[in-house]
Amino acid sequence: MCDVVKSNFDSLYPQIEKSLKSAAFIAIDSEFSGLISNSKFKRSLFDSGKENYLKMKHGIEQFIIFQFGLSVYHFNRERNEYAADIYNFYIFPHSFGSVDHKFLCQSSSWEFLCRYNFDFNMVAYKGISYLNNQQEKIIRKEFQENSCILNDAENLQAKKIIQEECSKILEWCLTAKINDSTYVDLNGIDFRLEYFLHKEIRRRFKQVWTYSEVLKIRIVMLSEEEVSKLETTHGRKLEETLLRNLLGFSKIFKLLVDLKKPIIGHNCFLDFMIAYNQFYAPLPTSYDVFKKNIHFLFPHVFDTKFMSYEVRRILMKEDKKVTVWPGNSLVELYEYFRDSKPLVSHIPKIIINDGIKEPAVEKRVHHACWDAYMTGFCFIYLAHFKAVENLGRNAISRPLSRTEHLAGVALYENCVNLMRCNIPFINFSGKDPPSNRPKSLHVRRKDLKAVDIYEITELLSSFGSVDVKSDGQGGALVAAARNSVYFDILWFYKGNEEFRIVPYFPLAHSRVIKSVLWSGIAISSGLVLTYLLSILRTSS
Amino acid sequence: MCDVVKSNFDSLYPQIEKSLKSAAFIAIDSEFSGLISNSKFKRSLFDSGKENYLKMKHGIEQFIIFQFGLSVYHFNRERNEYAADIYNFYIFPHSFGSVDHKFLCQSSSWEFLCRYNFDFNMVAYKGISYLNNQQEKIIRKEFQENSCILNDAENLQAKKIIQEECSKILEWCLTAKINDSTYVDLNGIDFRLEYFLHKEIRRRFKQVWTYSEVLKIRIVMLSEEEVSKLETTHGRKLEETLLRNLLGFSKIFKLLVDLKKPIIGHNCFLDFMIAYNQFYAPLPTSYDVFKKNIHFLFPHVFDTKFMSYEVRRILMKEDKKVTVWPGNSLVELYEYFRDSKPLVSHIPKIIINDGIKEPAVEKRVHHACWDAYMTGFCFIYLAHFKAVENLGRNAISRPLSRTEHLAGVALYENCVNLMRCNIPFINFSGKDPPSNRPKSLHVRRKDLKAVDIYEITELLSSFGSVDVKSDGQGGALVAAARNSVYFDILWFYKGNEEFRIVPYFPLAHSRVIKSVLWSGIAISSGLVLTYLLSILRTSS
Repeated sequence: MCDVVKSNFDSLYPQIEKSLKSAAFIAIDSEFSGLISNSKFKRSLFDSGKENYLKMKHGIEQFIIFQFGLSVYHFNRERNEYAADIYNFYIFPHSFGSVDHKFLCQSSSWEFLCRYNFDFNMVAYKGISYLNNQQEKIIRKEFQENSCILNDAENLQAKKIIQEECSKILEWCLTAKINDSTYVDLNGIDFRLEYFLHKEIRRRFKQVWTYSEVLKIRIVMLSEEEVSKLETTHGRKLEETLLRNLLGFSKIFKLLVDLKKPIIGHNCFLDFMIAYNQFYAPLPTSYDVFKKNIHFLFPHVFDTKFMSYEVRRILMKEDKKVTVWPGNSLVELYEYFRDSKPLVSHIPKIIINDGIKEPAVEKRVHHACWDAYMTGFCFIYLAHFKAVENLGRNAISRPLSRTEHLAGVALYENCVNLMRCNIPFINFSGKDPPSNRPKSLHVRRKDLKAVDIYEITELLSSFGSVDVKSDGQGGALVAAARNSVYFDILWFYKGNEEFRIVPYFPLAHSRVIKSVLWSGIAISSGLVLTYLLSILRTSS
Repeated sequence: MCDVVKSNFDSLYPQIEKSLKSAAFIAIDSEFSGLISNSKFKRSLFDSGKENYLKMKHGIEQFIIFQFGLSVYHFNRERNEYAADIYNFYIFPHSFGSVDHKFLCQSSSWEFLCRYNFDFNMVAYKGISYLNNQQEKIIRKEFQENSCILNDAENLQAKKIIQEECSKILEWCLTAKINDSTYVDLNGIDFRLEYFLHKEIRRRFKQVWTYSEVLKIRIVMLSEEEVSKLETTHGRKLEETLLRNLLGFSKIFKLLVDLKKPIIGHNCFLDFMIAYNQFYAPLPTSYDVFKKNIHFLFPHVFDTKFMSYEVRRILMKEDKKVTVWPGNSLVELYEYFRDSKPLVSHIPKIIINDGIKEPAVEKRVHHACWDAYMTGFCFIYLAHFKAVENLGRNAISRPLSRTEHLAGVALYENCVNLMRCNIPFINFSGKDPPSNRPKSLHVRRKDLKAVDIYEITELLSSFGSVDVKSDGQGGALVAAARNSVYFDILWFYKGNEEFRIVPYFPLAHSRVIKSVLWSGIAISSGLVLTYLLSILRTSS
């Protein structure tokens, strides 16, 4: 496990790049600054995929990823072994020029991170920079216009350092001869201040040129002619270096995009949305455009939460008494696979490359890199089981290749779990599935008074996850997350004295439709049908 | 100096309260999560006090105070000595029920805090809670409706702890007799979880009562009758305790309001706005209502930045060659008073109460408590000078009383410095002063092409602080911060070939007005006058 921060990012980058390039698949996870910016963006079981996306878009646009975990899995066929390189990136949006990020935080999310010993100082002091495409464009424009100035009024410290260094150089200049050199010590100096030091020295002293060296700037006295030649040939290098530093983690994001490797997450819709917004471009207002773009960027996505539901269903179907994992949370799934006997034989061995001992789950859960590791771990178990299952559980008894593992779960590719939505998952690569949620229930009071939505929610929540909204006519509509909840409610309220709860049929429950049906006004039947259909469409 | 965090807040509160009650005056300072949420809320030299307030209101509403410093000064007349109690509060908005604060952060503000070694983990892990009036109301309502449930889906850890403790109690119940007791250890348990533990134990076990003790809950077996009696008499105590904990720092704010002591800040308009919003109530949409309310809450406010400008002016007027402080920043002012000879005799001695040695300025600057201490320090020097000055510098040669010090600066009471505004300060207790900024300048190109606002800003900024906006007719209006900048620009551009820069006169420079004046259309003169006046009003 390796913490990647701004001070070691450049030196680790080649190693990370190499690891990613040779990966069988890459598991990811992220820790966010917040989850829901406003209760009006709370998702509901009534929401379509599109409504869910738009609510989330508005709800999360200002949140950022504080920590990004990569667990890069490599397969060794001979040893039937997956080995993981694990990287934990701390991320912080650095300000520069007119780009000064504002990011939203949520109390409960910080409290959540605190419960798992998250280090906020690592984010603030050591976080790697990033820019999305839009921010990169702004900074490139400011470079072209030469309008990047150290304009932060509060940044007196930086101005003082520049002034002091320039004074020293001025003194040195008085006696220096051509090819003499001196140094500015960069210890404790940030890459942005380094840039401004170079710029200011070159601006003030027309007979010197500055060179970047490890932790210092070398200043060499040259003829004005040579300086002017260097200005033409190397003048823009400073900006390139600075931009590379500002892009920081966005380079990793771009690399993931370029490599088109399978990306594995657990319940990772939010991870993809926030990462897209933060490292790539502002989220599109169109759901379809988002789906198209995310699929273009990451054509092979797997969600172990979705897979966990699906594989569990297969197992339960085959044998109702089988002991499967107790729930579909990452920890439950991981602990099940780690501690139980494998479902099928020849499961690959899984190791961590740098030979460190895995810390206890309690110590590492909700640290992005460990969650990514556990996600990849579960993916291997689920994919191996499904691959064996597809090939015929008894027909085959040998280790499988990584291609066979991926082929085994091809059916689940690009299906990402959705929480609180009327469809169970989003399909990044095509049409979303039809809703598998139970139909809505309709509630009204037997005394015909208007129902209290709050009361109904409280009453029915005891049966399981439900969402309640007004039917606009004094009654309420109820969406239940599962069939069991739906039938429990129906059964329990059969013959109830206070409430009448029945399956919802728009035709039967809409007063408007009723009045049309019984009005007896002569309208051609075609018109009535069109009208009814339009009502049905908006009320479904 | 004392760090006040959630774990020692309750035990320190009586001491802080006592210190505040006997204070001569109280100096404050705060460190924020951000400063400007959006560049469209950037303040300008064109802004009136009201415009400035409204921009700031929209710009800062979501920012919060991470650290609040109090330096509580007590006067000892006999020793002619001010002694300061210094408290450094770390503040974090705790979530509870449906109150889940969202707060905005700004990259450059975090970077600023990092430069001064700010500890973000202290905020997240040890920050004291707070609620403004609105949030307090919501929670009180939820208490009444009994709708506070542990509904955070992620909070599995808490649910597990409750489950485990209840299992233990269930086992104990099997053999316990009336008046037997057992304990729940509260080590490492947060006050909110403590509340839910009490609630859940009382809900599940009708024959026990729970008592809060130091770091534990005592559970006593009683008759159901006794339990029911306790429920009636003490049932609501849990909510009171919880609310007290949630209110946290708001209690200090309320205490400051109740005590009506003189409050001293340095450039403290933003401190007052954010504190009002965070600890009291959402900022009013009306400037006048804000002024009225803030004056009602804090009737005696002094701003050492404003005082510094004023006293400096007096000194410079008397003797043009006098050496005064080099600038009006807090550090410049403090270092000047600490190191120079006092301006007048009998200046009180200033000490820190707990006998600690002051750290070097570099180590403490921008730590809220130290900035508050320095602010109070400067206030004493400025007030003493002004008091002696008022009484006649040569007529009096004795130490002064704290009443005399305050009386000496009565003229500056409730005048709070404004940055980038067309008035120099806001008067919390009455009408704002007239603008003392130079009149606007008018710029147009001699070739009559439209000016480039960006180019004009860049050109004129070299003379000093200016703001530039379009005149809507191809020219630009320029507001200069100081007369010297105004005259320098006029002088420099006299006879310039490219630009014509002259003092702005709405009558002369508005094409609309010109066209009215020269149109020759017969309108009654009264109407023309009304029309002109309305144009002048909107364009001034």
